[in-house]
Amino acid sequence: MNQPYGSRNLPRTIALIGRYQSPEIAESLRLLARYLRERGVTVLVEEETAANIGKLAGDEHWVPGSFEAIGASVDVAIVLGGDGTMLNAARRLARYKVPLAGVNQGRLGFMTDIARDDMLTCMEDLLDGRFVSETRMMLDAEVLRDGRELASNIALNDVVMDKGAIGRMIEFELYIDGEFIYNLRADGLIVSTPTGSTAYSLSANGPILHPQVAGIALVPLCPHALTNRPILVGDQADIELRITHATDCRVHFDGQLTVDLVRGDAVRLHRSQYSICFLHPPGYSYFAMLRQKLQWSARPKGT
Amino acid sequence: MNQPYGSRNLPRTIALIGRYQSPEIAESLRLLARYLRERGVTVLVEEETAANIGKLAGDEHWVPGSFEAIGASVDVAIVLGGDGTMLNAARRLARYKVPLAGVNQGRLGFMTDIARDDMLTCMEDLLDGRFVSETRMMLDAEVLRDGRELASNIALNDVVMDKGAIGRMIEFELYIDGEFIYNLRADGLIVSTPTGSTAYSLSANGPILHPQVAGIALVPLCPHALTNRPILVGDQADIELRITHATDCRVHFDGQLTVDLVRGDAVRLHRSQYSICFLHPPGYSYFAMLRQKLQWSARPKGT
Amino acid sequence: MNQPYGSRNLPRTIALIGRYQSPEIAESLRLLARYLRERGVTVLVEEETAANIGKLAGDEHWVPGSFEAIGASVDVAIVLGGDGTMLNAARRLARYKVPLAGVNQGRLGFMTDIARDDMLTCMEDLLDGRFVSETRMMLDAEVLRDGRELASNIALNDVVMDKGAIGRMIEFELYIDGEFIYNLRADGLIVSTPTGSTAYSLSANGPILHPQVAGIALVPLCPHALTNRPILVGDQADIELRITHATDCRVHFDGQLTVDLVRGDAVRLHRSQYSICFLHPPGYSYFAMLRQKLQWSARPKGT
Amino acid sequence: MNQPYGSRNLPRTIALIGRYQSPEIAESLRLLARYLRERGVTVLVEEETAANIGKLAGDEHWVPGSFEAIGASVDVAIVLGGDGTMLNAARRLARYKVPLAGVNQGRLGFMTDIARDDMLTCMEDLLDGRFVSETRMMLDAEVLRDGRELASNIALNDVVMDKGAIGRMIEFELYIDGEFIYNLRADGLIVSTPTGSTAYSLSANGPILHPQVAGIALVPLCPHALTNRPILVGDQADIELRITHATDCRVHFDGQLTVDLVRGDAVRLHRSQYSICFLHPPGYSYFAMLRQKLQWSARPKGT
Repeated sequence: MNQPYGSRNLPRTIALIGRYQSPEIAESLRLLARYLRERGVTVLVEEETAANIGKLAGDEHWVPGSFEAIGASVDVAIVLGGDGTMLNAARRLARYKVPLAGVNQGRLGFMTDIARDDMLTCMEDLLDGRFVSETRMMLDAEVLRDGRELASNIALNDVVMDKGAIGRMIEFELYIDGEFIYNLRADGLIVSTPTGSTAYSLSANGPILHPQVAGIALVPLCPHALTNRPILVGDQADIELRITHATDCRVHFDGQLTVDLVRGDAVRLHRSQYSICFLHPPGYSYFAMLRQKLQWSARPKGT
Repeated sequence: MNQPYGSRNLPRTIALIGRYQSPEIAESLRLLARYLRERGVTVLVEEETAANIGKLAGDEHWVPGSFEAIGASVDVAIVLGGDGTMLNAARRLARYKVPLAGVNQGRLGFMTDIARDDMLTCMEDLLDGRFVSETRMMLDAEVLRDGRELASNIALNDVVMDKGAIGRMIEFELYIDGEFIYNLRADGLIVSTPTGSTAYSLSANGPILHPQVAGIALVPLCPHALTNRPILVGDQADIELRITHATDCRVHFDGQLTVDLVRGDAVRLHRSQYSICFLHPPGYSYFAMLRQKLQWSARPKGT
Repeated sequence: MNQPYGSRNLPRTIALIGRYQSPEIAESLRLLARYLRERGVTVLVEEETAANIGKLAGDEHWVPGSFEAIGASVDVAIVLGGDGTMLNAARRLARYKVPLAGVNQGRLGFMTDIARDDMLTCMEDLLDGRFVSETRMMLDAEVLRDGRELASNIALNDVVMDKGAIGRMIEFELYIDGEFIYNLRADGLIVSTPTGSTAYSLSANGPILHPQVAGIALVPLCPHALTNRPILVGDQADIELRITHATDCRVHFDGQLTVDLVRGDAVRLHRSQYSICFLHPPGYSYFAMLRQKLQWSARPKGT
Repeated sequence: MNQPYGSRNLPRTIALIGRYQSPEIAESLRLLARYLRERGVTVLVEEETAANIGKLAGDEHWVPGSFEAIGASVDVAIVLGGDGTMLNAARRLARYKVPLAGVNQGRLGFMTDIARDDMLTCMEDLLDGRFVSETRMMLDAEVLRDGRELASNIALNDVVMDKGAIGRMIEFELYIDGEFIYNLRADGLIVSTPTGSTAYSLSANGPILHPQVAGIALVPLCPHALTNRPILVGDQADIELRITHATDCRVHFDGQLTVDLVRGDAVRLHRSQYSICFLHPPGYSYFAMLRQKLQWSARPKGT
């Protein structure tokens, strides 16, 4: 599934995007920017990241840019941070088809698989065309109130509808392709992509979905019905959630954006027309990452 | 375990407590009050219940009374409603050692096991000393901020600490008898009595605890650590939860009372000095109730 | 996804296949055979089924036939029995591309969705081209010992490797597309198709997979590693299980065929080149069947 | 709960029991025997252990003895091996009230909590009265066929009834205190003590029970009914399992002894009159052991 990246068009312009309000990435970012500039690459730094670390003398080898500017001009975006930073960058850049590579800050992420210590070696691999690319599906979700769109967004991990602070269960109906499936009283429901299957969904006993699986997982949160189980539907399914009872209810996009809901609201979901492309260093293995993150025993018997 | 009730002192004064803001119980309540009065029983109606149904001509056979008055004077309280109404009555009356019997409004409850249609027959059994009594443990919980008690309450089902509306995980430490047990990032933690084990805890994959088991269940909500499992500790355990990270966090008593928490707050829990006594009609079986509520196959093979 | 069936070529030859050693289906089968014959259809009865019910005077409207003869000549096979009978027929007939319809004997099956009482009406629908067809993927599995094929078979539901009678855990390694994934000590592992996801896999906490999902579920049985969870891989994955420790181990195909394994044996699995086609009566809904089988609440709120 | 051990009567006679057929414990055992002898303790070595390691010149400081002889004469038995060795020793010695201490062979066990490297230091603590004792309940189980006892045994971890090699579900009825609870089709049922709750039961999603909890857990294996959940009953419960359908069924005691069952057989279980006493080195903590075995994050935040 994974394709070699850049065999024809090696990256000439690269964006650097840092974790939100995290000045501690400044050193890594400067190191990276300097290296890329020396290799003849034009470097943009996402403008909030730039503001966050401040510009010093000697930082003339990069210019700040908005996500829009990044989307319009770069070949690759390098994210410095954790999975949360990747999620945000993915939602902002998916429409521009900018591929992402993630540099973690010490702890391997599900999506940020380049160790800071290997950062420069990896950049060499990237610039020389030795990375592989992998496509991940995303979700489109729109919130409808009285038949009109109240909000909409895309998500790379999941769209979660759940109860709010008062702590009362919500009640909702699930429809797939227009067909009524069930009504459920629960704390909520996670609608997850394969990428999101190792995030919140996993805590709620959802299955792990290999990124290659073209499916969307529906994972209930504390369902009141003991027979309700996680269900996986095809990636072409139209999913609709209609709130039939709730004193306090919300929908979350990748756990980062939140919209308040009231009884009668509906959330419609389907696979987005946009995907995100992840770039991985040579030797990347989805399962090796999983094994490390989940602390499975590491190697075949007898080796 | 279950003891015959009333063999020596049959009930002479009975309170009636209705579901919160539910005028539809008026008819059952009047029927019950009239029947009890005819049997020579003095009848108090809980004052909010009384206000809720209004007093008509012909209602002179009962008088309204506060929970305090009920606690001070009645032999038994009859609850008309669902398990939620029972929970509230139990928390209000536990200190007075008033036993409770529950009349459901059509759907069998875990605690309200008298069907409305059998109500008068059951009253006859109650007044004639054919009920059995069963004791259920309760929890005391106090919320501490900066070492001072912010709030405290008792709970019959559970004390739940969970994230609030923003939807971010909380992080907390668990101590038992002063010993550090673990720290956990999760949506929250349910601390449940045996009675609460068939309520919220069951939705979160907690075990069912027979009321006879002297234990307290600690059931995580969507734990970030895949190895974290429900744990049962003895009923004499001192449990403490300390919030180490939270943007938005709450503690709920029986899902009915809520206190906002902030980072640094602690919740201390232990078995309450108070228990509640449930009165059940003759033939009551905990497992039969469970079987019906959980829709297990109903009968032995070959019968 | 579901296609109208028979719009061009209506069935002219139909096989009837009964539950194994179940004479009680004789009456339904005769009724069905007579009806089909009257409609001008040639009827074959699977030879063991035929032997099982015995031939009476008046049974001259059908002839017995082997699965091979059925495969070579019929347009449709009607199965009378439960899901087990369907599984067996599917494995026997998949290579011949014979579509199957299932008549249950009183209890709705996941696959046998025609009620006996509606049998003749459904036959009319079938003969008049009002059925819909649905394709289900199958698995190929081969058992290797010392590099040579010991056994092989196909499965519609699942291939299960598990411990035997002694009750000791087995230990095995999982490889996907030649890559080592994990080694695991467990009671076993279920490799399940979407069709099998509502069978044994569901009892082992596997997710429900809509038939449209092109994936294979790997569901551990009582894994010794608490972090091991069900994983879904794409339907093009090559899966290999290598037994590294076992005193007693077996592999089961659809729970109906069993092969003994020893340490060092491997089981290789991949999507079969054969699929099975199910024919459903008009109005069939996968989710409606699921709702009924799992006893979810049946209808939208307020209807 | 844990009591200081030996404050009055320090151990004068000690048995050493090694892992079954494991000559590699010979060195540790000799070291231990010599040390104990030097401290004036009389040393018995369990006779199979003795035969297994062979007697060398210089081994005159210990004598071999049967479990019966050990039971009759020693103050403490030291087990060298893993949890399996402890389980066997516990079943053999429970009736003699001999306390057990466990020396693991490199990997911390749930029950063998003395590291080999700390062995001699711990012996000093033991001989000087610095150990603590902890009592663990056990189960009695008897198998009945046609009303007569076919077999009986005790178990420290669990009694498991499960399907055998053919892989077909079994069907059984559960009775508690003579009352029918449910019938279930499943792979089996685990009846577990608190000690067994971290063993097989945990793999089957059973709850962790602190040793202080006086309860018995009933944990289904792959139940066919989605609403069936682990149940905890009081330690005074009489539990009976009656097999109503099985082609192949067995009962296992601590996973070490097995009895074949047929349809109609019953297994009766209740808390044993015998308990086992574990001796732990100073500083032992049940939760610390659990934390290490389950790889929970190890320490309070900010330390």
